[in-house]
Amino acid sequence: MKAAMYYDRGDIRIEDVDSNSMGQSDVLIQVDSTGICGSDLHEYAAGPIFAPGESPHPLSGETTPIRMGHEFSGVIKEIGNHVSHLEIEDKVAINPILCCGSCRQCIKGDYHICDSIGFIGLSGGSGGFAETVVLDAEHVVPLGDKIPIEYGAFVEPLSVGLHAVRRSNLHVGDTVAVFGSGPIGLAVIQCAKAAGASNVIVSEPRSARRQKAIECGADEIIDPSAVDAPDHIQSQTNGGCDISFEVAGVEASFKDAIASTAPGGHTTIVSIWEEEVRSQLNNLVLGERTVTGSLAYLGGPRAQEEYGMVIKMMEHGVLDPEPFITDRIKLDDIVKLGFEKLLDPKSEHVKILVKPN
Amino acid sequence: MKAAMYYDRGDIRIEDVDSNSMGQSDVLIQVDSTGICGSDLHEYAAGPIFAPGESPHPLSGETTPIRMGHEFSGVIKEIGNHVSHLEIEDKVAINPILCCGSCRQCIKGDYHICDSIGFIGLSGGSGGFAETVVLDAEHVVPLGDKIPIEYGAFVEPLSVGLHAVRRSNLHVGDTVAVFGSGPIGLAVIQCAKAAGASNVIVSEPRSARRQKAIECGADEIIDPSAVDAPDHIQSQTNGGCDISFEVAGVEASFKDAIASTAPGGHTTIVSIWEEEVRSQLNNLVLGERTVTGSLAYLGGPRAQEEYGMVIKMMEHGVLDPEPFITDRIKLDDIVKLGFEKLLDPKSEHVKILVKPN
Repeated sequence: MKAAMYYDRGDIRIEDVDSNSMGQSDVLIQVDSTGICGSDLHEYAAGPIFAPGESPHPLSGETTPIRMGHEFSGVIKEIGNHVSHLEIEDKVAINPILCCGSCRQCIKGDYHICDSIGFIGLSGGSGGFAETVVLDAEHVVPLGDKIPIEYGAFVEPLSVGLHAVRRSNLHVGDTVAVFGSGPIGLAVIQCAKAAGASNVIVSEPRSARRQKAIECGADEIIDPSAVDAPDHIQSQTNGGCDISFEVAGVEASFKDAIASTAPGGHTTIVSIWEEEVRSQLNNLVLGERTVTGSLAYLGGPRAQEEYGMVIKMMEHGVLDPEPFITDRIKLDDIVKLGFEKLLDPKSEHVKILVKPN
Repeated sequence: MKAAMYYDRGDIRIEDVDSNSMGQSDVLIQVDSTGICGSDLHEYAAGPIFAPGESPHPLSGETTPIRMGHEFSGVIKEIGNHVSHLEIEDKVAINPILCCGSCRQCIKGDYHICDSIGFIGLSGGSGGFAETVVLDAEHVVPLGDKIPIEYGAFVEPLSVGLHAVRRSNLHVGDTVAVFGSGPIGLAVIQCAKAAGASNVIVSEPRSARRQKAIECGADEIIDPSAVDAPDHIQSQTNGGCDISFEVAGVEASFKDAIASTAPGGHTTIVSIWEEEVRSQLNNLVLGERTVTGSLAYLGGPRAQEEYGMVIKMMEHGVLDPEPFITDRIKLDDIVKLGFEKLLDPKSEHVKILVKPN
């Protein structure tokens, strides 16, 4: 069967590979839809980062090439003897978190900040840019029948947004600023509105993404290349918002995210950083501001709650992935119509779904 | 009467000045003891910072020269007609916070992060390096008779440490690292032990201050110029402490304070910063770490709780300023035997008390 193999920076190949072998706690899934994620783009443009390169990943044991793709949904076609909570033809989403199970965080149940954290489709394992995958049933979450199977590919990125909002100290009625409205920024906007934010202001330099922010429920959009974002947000929120999110991964938006909050405000960083940033810590001290990081979502044995919340919220229409989707492409076209389009700075794409068939 | 007047960087003069005039809500206090604070040293070495300079402070309305000194105790000698909660001969500590009363934080009761925050003795008003002061009774907190009046000069710096620990997410049993053991670092150590920290490790390059850390209850001291502090702390705390405090105000200790915490850990910054620092935000994101700032202590109308806690904890012997005191000097000697000694990098001094008489 076909799969997209990540070899190295700038080198992803569609190859014909064998299906992974089935163990007794595994299931075989026919993939329906797989999203191309910002992390995939990082690996292609500047990797290997999460991808193992020449030394094996401590959990997958794999070196490159690896099977890529970690935001995906599909239908179960085979089930191992030891799997009890899933059935043939179940529609499912995949929680790709790999954890060691034995470090201090894993023992506490914080599997998503495991010392050896990895992701199926980034660190090895049966990635979703493929026709079929074989996965331990622990990674497989039933979608039910109330939402389209395609939306299952959004459970992963929406869970990133949900986890960030749940970590953020946001209380119903708070004012919120979101810096960056790519796919994770849009997920944060939807989750902040779902959490009862009274005013969500989004700062995003790309006009197509500002439009998406509005579709996802933003109350106001601003272009930080045209206005002073902290000044504007302070003027709209009686001296600063309560909560801000940094989802752009650039120094300017990190500084703006802090400077936009009122004294006592909280900033949550969701981005991964390639370089150090400069900051003036008096902004934290004199205003008693707080900055915290948010990574992924709960995942690992007995820790799929956030996936379940996202599925339920999609059923209720509170979270809606429809505005995210800007194209659907075939696996064979993944590099040219997927990665290359998304990396084009003039691109108006947000989320491109890859279909194996 | 004599008072120390701050004119400018490097220019503090003992002058004979008039006592401030008494209003109906004021009290006149005969000063007993006034501590020289790190903020005073900043003003002398690199100021004016909090001191107003040539443009009047928005709350005091004063320009330099101002009467200096904000950590002090004394005895009430006169009382205005409108003052009901104090009596002649009461021993008192002074809460020097100046706030506007009308900004968003003041309206919420967070007077200590007022938009116009100032401090008596730094921003204007009746500073404590003087024979007597006249202050609105709102700033005056009775010490009672169970602790020496001299200890009243420590209510202010101990409240800075208490407030930082109360903001820090420290839970009884947690492991703690403190970076820097000057007066505020020592206050943090005592308060962290009082809060039930199971292990307090202190990183401090000066040997005399490491000794003081032990006297204040530190369980272990390390010299960051001799060992890798984060490595050592991680090895002593099963992969990282729960809580760290940055009380040194240098980039290296800020980075070490974050790197010493376990994933999920919290760092509280208590220092004031003269320059931007560089940091790698992945340390926050990948380990879901949190950084927060802490400023001063509660102060302002009806917000003296933390002063009351410190006084009670001194009565119980849980907080003990005795190890802080390295000298007692006369007001006339404040520059030569006070500021100059403390600014000497080889100095073994921690807290020098100034006596007006």
